[in-house]
Amino acid sequence: MKPETVQNEQDYSSPAYLDKLDAYWRAANYLSVGQIYLKDNPLLRRPIEDEDMKVHPIGHWGTVPGQNFIYAHLNRVINKYDLNMFYIEGPGHGGQVMVSNAYLDGSYTEIYPKITQDESGMQRLFKQFSFPGGVASHAAPETPGSIHEGGELGYSLSHGVGTILDNPDLIAAVVIGDGEAETGPLAASWFSNRFINPIHDGAVLPILHLNGFKISNPTIMGRQTDEELEQYFRGLGWEPLFVEGDDPAILHPQMAGAMDTAIERIRNIQRYAREDQDPSRPAWPVLICRTPKGWTGPEKWDGLTIEGSFRAHQVPIPADREHMQYTPALTEWMNSYRPQELFDENGRLKSEIADILPRGERRMAMNPVTNAGKLIRDLKLPNLADYAVKIDKPGAQDDQDMHVLGEYVRDVMKLNEENRNFRIFGPDETMSNRLSAVFEVTKRQWVAKIDEVNDEDMAHSGRVIDSQLSEHQAEGMLEGYVLSGRHGFFASYEAFLRVVDSMITQHFKWMRKASDLPWRADIPALNLISSSTVFQQDHNGYTHQDPGILTHLADKKPELVREYLPADANTLLAVFEKIANDRQRINVVVSSKHPRPQWFSAEEAAELVEQGLKIVDWASTATKGEEPDIVIAASGTEPTVEALAAIQILHQQLPELKIRCVNVVDLLKLRHHKRDPRGLTEDAFQAFFTVDKPVVYAFHGYEGLLKDLFFDHANRNLHAHGYRENGDITTPFDMRVLNQMDRFSIVKTAVTALPHNERYAEIVRKMEDMLDKHTRYIREEGRDLPEVTEWRWEGLE
Amino acid sequence: MKPETVQNEQDYSSPAYLDKLDAYWRAANYLSVGQIYLKDNPLLRRPIEDEDMKVHPIGHWGTVPGQNFIYAHLNRVINKYDLNMFYIEGPGHGGQVMVSNAYLDGSYTEIYPKITQDESGMQRLFKQFSFPGGVASHAAPETPGSIHEGGELGYSLSHGVGTILDNPDLIAAVVIGDGEAETGPLAASWFSNRFINPIHDGAVLPILHLNGFKISNPTIMGRQTDEELEQYFRGLGWEPLFVEGDDPAILHPQMAGAMDTAIERIRNIQRYAREDQDPSRPAWPVLICRTPKGWTGPEKWDGLTIEGSFRAHQVPIPADREHMQYTPALTEWMNSYRPQELFDENGRLKSEIADILPRGERRMAMNPVTNAGKLIRDLKLPNLADYAVKIDKPGAQDDQDMHVLGEYVRDVMKLNEENRNFRIFGPDETMSNRLSAVFEVTKRQWVAKIDEVNDEDMAHSGRVIDSQLSEHQAEGMLEGYVLSGRHGFFASYEAFLRVVDSMITQHFKWMRKASDLPWRADIPALNLISSSTVFQQDHNGYTHQDPGILTHLADKKPELVREYLPADANTLLAVFEKIANDRQRINVVVSSKHPRPQWFSAEEAAELVEQGLKIVDWASTATKGEEPDIVIAASGTEPTVEALAAIQILHQQLPELKIRCVNVVDLLKLRHHKRDPRGLTEDAFQAFFTVDKPVVYAFHGYEGLLKDLFFDHANRNLHAHGYRENGDITTPFDMRVLNQMDRFSIVKTAVTALPHNERYAEIVRKMEDMLDKHTRYIREEGRDLPEVTEWRWEGLE
Ligand SMILES: Cc1ncc(C[n+]2csc(CCOP(=O)(O)OP(=O)(O)O)c2C)c(N)n1
Ligand SMILES: Cc1ncc(C[n+]2csc(CCOP(=O)(O)OP(=O)(O)O)c2C)c(N)n1
Ligand SMILES: [Mg+2]
Ligand SMILES: [Mg+2]
Repeated sequence: MKPETVQNEQDYSSPAYLDKLDAYWRAANYLSVGQIYLKDNPLLRRPIEDEDMKVHPIGHWGTVPGQNFIYAHLNRVINKYDLNMFYIEGPGHGGQVMVSNAYLDGSYTEIYPKITQDESGMQRLFKQFSFPGGVASHAAPETPGSIHEGGELGYSLSHGVGTILDNPDLIAAVVIGDGEAETGPLAASWFSNRFINPIHDGAVLPILHLNGFKISNPTIMGRQTDEELEQYFRGLGWEPLFVEGDDPAILHPQMAGAMDTAIERIRNIQRYAREDQDPSRPAWPVLICRTPKGWTGPEKWDGLTIEGSFRAHQVPIPADREHMQYTPALTEWMNSYRPQELFDENGRLKSEIADILPRGERRMAMNPVTNAGKLIRDLKLPNLADYAVKIDKPGAQDDQDMHVLGEYVRDVMKLNEENRNFRIFGPDETMSNRLSAVFEVTKRQWVAKIDEVNDEDMAHSGRVIDSQLSEHQAEGMLEGYVLSGRHGFFASYEAFLRVVDSMITQHFKWMRKASDLPWRADIPALNLISSSTVFQQDHNGYTHQDPGILTHLADKKPELVREYLPADANTLLAVFEKIANDRQRINVVVSSKHPRPQWFSAEEAAELVEQGLKIVDWASTATKGEEPDIVIAASGTEPTVEALAAIQILHQQLPELKIRCVNVVDLLKLRHHKRDPRGLTEDAFQAFFTVDKPVVYAFHGYEGLLKDLFFDHANRNLHAHGYRENGDITTPFDMRVLNQMDRFSIVKTAVTALPHNERYAEIVRKMEDMLDKHTRYIREEGRDLPEVTEWRWEGLE
Repeated sequence: MKPETVQNEQDYSSPAYLDKLDAYWRAANYLSVGQIYLKDNPLLRRPIEDEDMKVHPIGHWGTVPGQNFIYAHLNRVINKYDLNMFYIEGPGHGGQVMVSNAYLDGSYTEIYPKITQDESGMQRLFKQFSFPGGVASHAAPETPGSIHEGGELGYSLSHGVGTILDNPDLIAAVVIGDGEAETGPLAASWFSNRFINPIHDGAVLPILHLNGFKISNPTIMGRQTDEELEQYFRGLGWEPLFVEGDDPAILHPQMAGAMDTAIERIRNIQRYAREDQDPSRPAWPVLICRTPKGWTGPEKWDGLTIEGSFRAHQVPIPADREHMQYTPALTEWMNSYRPQELFDENGRLKSEIADILPRGERRMAMNPVTNAGKLIRDLKLPNLADYAVKIDKPGAQDDQDMHVLGEYVRDVMKLNEENRNFRIFGPDETMSNRLSAVFEVTKRQWVAKIDEVNDEDMAHSGRVIDSQLSEHQAEGMLEGYVLSGRHGFFASYEAFLRVVDSMITQHFKWMRKASDLPWRADIPALNLISSSTVFQQDHNGYTHQDPGILTHLADKKPELVREYLPADANTLLAVFEKIANDRQRINVVVSSKHPRPQWFSAEEAAELVEQGLKIVDWASTATKGEEPDIVIAASGTEPTVEALAAIQILHQQLPELKIRCVNVVDLLKLRHHKRDPRGLTEDAFQAFFTVDKPVVYAFHGYEGLLKDLFFDHANRNLHAHGYRENGDITTPFDMRVLNQMDRFSIVKTAVTALPHNERYAEIVRKMEDMLDKHTRYIREEGRDLPEVTEWRWEGLE
């Protein structure tokens, strides 16, 4: 534990210190304006000329000065208290904030040596910002110290909380825009204080940046009184501390005081909890910082207020290469920061100012957690064989895939308990998704009242976080957890993964850009387990059906996405083993939680996952290498059952028919090699699917995805049976029938796709009779036909 | 205005009245249990036999008794104050609530005459619930009085608020689960009180149902103290009223008192605002109802608490046809409601109890707003021709499509001002999306402080609601607005429509099921305008790029979804006119907000929208009816520009080449007729795209969707140039180059797709040179090549 006394004798609140801090702040502001407008002449040592100006100045100014102010004061407390702190920029559209501050403390130059700490480096810094071939206007992956871009607003606090879990010394300083605070995800993330254990987790310091406006509207909170804000935060269990005004001379000491209070509160909370081993929910501090939008910028333009209004949001003065007449105003603005007092003759921040900055890894831009790929400790994994379901005969016995996985995951928990680097996240569905075995070794972390009689598996400390009904929180905290180098997964109802479609996209985009940066180490994969799926809904119905996450993610760049559809427990285990220590990836695993026949031995499962797909010999009548008459393929649990049942019927009806059964687990392997280097070459594809024979494909998802995957291959004789957007409260088998993803419909399609299909009219009729019988039976009995429930794979003679 | 005095002399708080109310509540609970378990013997007039029991009892019990209690008390205040009120069931998974109450007051039988109010009707009522061919376990479209299913939790309050806008007499009683209250969308929707004008809007009465648990966890708010809850709600600007306990004898008078207070507060707020014309933000009441989960149900089972614990969530006693040994417990439970006191010998609710129920349209299940298709007044639309851009020569002049649309929409506002039935919703982006013309005639509705100097276009009353940065709120309120029979649209940044993917799906699912019900009238379309799109990002970058809403919705059933990609202002106008009064649909309109060349005359635009697609004669070198060598197709603004520029280059380079240019506005028309009756037949498709000639398609979205659309057609010689998931802060043209959706890349593909493509190596080289030149230029200059920015369509020969 850190000592709570001040580490050195410097008076961090002296006017002299705060003067330097103000100078530092002015320097950051100066750089932040320059990045918007200038290509050259960064220190304005000569009048601005055409060539100095950008053609299209781009950037968001409004949020920047307030954030630079906050950043400067965070630096102050880092030094004063020797903090392990980093910065999350909610309004990440103010990309200059993190760039400017990282540049001033030298971090930027360490990572990008060309951007030197002198005039020519400053020139390059300015030019590259929001410029083709340069850096984003947001706090993007290329920004040192950032793990959060803020492009899509709402996730900053969830990310911060995910990061500090199991990092007891870490403080995430999370700046939240007052616009961002109006989003659903952010509003829900205030509840995070229930999930932070003060003993073994670190702390978040949320800083609500109440600059009063968003793009062209005032903000809701900006128009609230302090009393109302105080009540809101106290009601949420936080302790608000206010800093307000627009006069830097008053604000610096005020902010210094509030920051000190906040840090000391955090320290006290932690010390108390750790010494007394009392994890009860403390009221963590939240800073509320009410300063003008576009503070220190132009007050007015064209007769209209800029500073302190929404008009400061982006580029406040319309100066650019085509509007040189406005450059005097720009010069005046930039000179108002008195650059000559800030930078030495070489253009470097004067050393007496730089003096007050943190050093080394204490600089927020260099905090190791912000490039956490280097901190990863791989998960220790138990021996898969110990968990595998024994398969004497394919399909002879039932098991619950998710339940089997639960036992394996339980032991992953155990093996890695000491490293504290593995967690499960979810929206109140861990039990429902049948992962309850994990509760034998750990609990849900719940830093609130626990009712010994009525609650189950709750504790102040535990490795499962699923006690908030929010997919946004589950996804956001997991993102923070993996971005900071740890492992975990988010288990969700399949349909409600769609609630966080866009969050997942943003994480994907982050990884993609990060992958291009040699200095960023790969981070652990984001693993999503999609259960309670479309083809079995018991207590719920049509609203709970949407397998479209598969299509959604398949549209993205292939390198970073994998979609696994294991058909049984052994395959699911093999998939989990494969993804557990995976890096720089989004893995979606679709899994069943209901009792289902078990098909593949551990060896077959390993092969399936290794290759991605496999000809299932024991379910094929075409012999090895022999050209089949038809291919019956399947991806997913229920599709595999139905495909096999269809094969059995087909074989009974047409014993001569040469059937090849293919099971596909790693769906995106089907992509043509020319679109995805990992995808099947045309030859390999044909070795499974032939050149032109009918492929009847029982599929877990929407059919469009399958067509997309087949499109680039020669054999487009595809007959997809996927989810056709039909559903209801009904029996498990009827859900398949409603979508024609049942054995009978598949047989109909198969025989119809064969040459001379007129011969098989009788088979088609039989299938239709079965479907009629089914529908009549379930409406009377409320359960499936015994022919279906008692069906077993019998083997092919 | 309603008089605020009580309408009749009955003492609504007398013990006698509350006794009847309690009896009514018991009846509702009795029916709600019966629906879970029984197929027959509904009044338990004989011992339960095998045949009486369902095989798979399904339902959510935990939420039901508390909601039945609330419903009964809402009925009471409806009568006492003659209220125009309806019910939104947040925890809609308790489907029995609305079914049971609608059955008891006769609404159910009016809509479903077979479900009579007698023993045999009750038997059918029980059997059909959560049963194949029956009704959903949720408050689904088939449920009388419901406009909200609650399948995906989080949207109840946004829906309620959308409904009461411009309905000054209406009160939406919105029950919110304490689990639901933890979701992002719900947490953000408390801010709605800023958007309700007490003069011309109605009121929501949120009722937080604090039953303490969700699926298998306690709830966050359930574990908070009343003091904290009080602060939370006051901080959000609401006035909380508490009702707590588990003894009905105490709770009935308490609830009656709290309800009276809530209604009187609402009345007073409205009277005061309306008499004094003072729209300042009032503190609307919120009821907080803390009662046990599974209240009145079994206390324990197997030694574990049920009532008052998470274990009451679904089916508390495991009795079913295969577990008849537990039926005595079920009998005991059901008889605890003393059915003999509640139902007469025919099985009908005794008349002295039924006496206290509202009548006619005052019954919440019969409130006209819940089947609002019947209330629609079509929008009056201005004459399109008055807004059309005049086209002397295609591409000769630039305009901003969204700006032109803004002028039309402004006048739609004006024409319908009196009917108050048209609104715009958005997350702070109305200005950014260039719809500012509407502010000439109306303002943003903002019931909070307005700063005359710094704000623009804000007023306490206005028809634009875009002052909360929340896509969930914009989408949710619009849904409520159209579900209650009015018109509007949600204009969003394209990428951030994905934030509400799943909400849109749920609305779609609602409409789809509603369409099957003859008694439900069609509702106005949900119109989504997607602007600030993938192919032009100025102030933002890669995070703001995602055209995938097109793929997402295309996966759904075709009848209810349209996707329009107008290439210019006239086409956009024609699309808007088409969708303005559309019904039972989700329309996505993708539109550009930047200055762009204008192509189509008003007549051509009308034809394009009417037919969905069109051969563009003036951009084709193949004459009418002549088989082209190649088809160049486009959907979307930038794709159309690039396709035309490519055609120009191709024609210059290869004057003999027979090119056909096709523009597609109504994208899903491309679906094969066999999948969508509205889609093109194979012949029609070939008339545009030939049987086998190369089709080079410049496309706004992800390419997978295009492949899906082409898959079922004969001509699969498709070369898609869509969004390839590349982006950055860069120039407008470079965004296209990065994705190879630029003219040069299209020309390369086109000539490569021609027979004997070795002849065109020189053209390919030229294109590559241009691309190189482009990249070098923008990195130096920060803007696009003059060849690109000054390019104009010159016509062919
Ligand atoms: C989910 C989402 N919706 C919309 C936007 C578009 N947008 C970018 S910045 C902004 C306003 C942000 O306001 P605030 O959070 O207060 O930041 P600041 O005032 O500090 O710039 C909006 C609406 C976005 N980035 N993300
Ligand atoms: C967005 C979303 N995530 C998850 C679920 C799964 N789910 C169904 S009911 C439920 C618990 C609801 O708790 P609460 O709102 O308190 O309702 P009640 O206790 O009255 O049943 C959950 C998590 C859902 N329906 N929607
Ligand atoms: Mg702001
Ligand atoms: Mg609850």
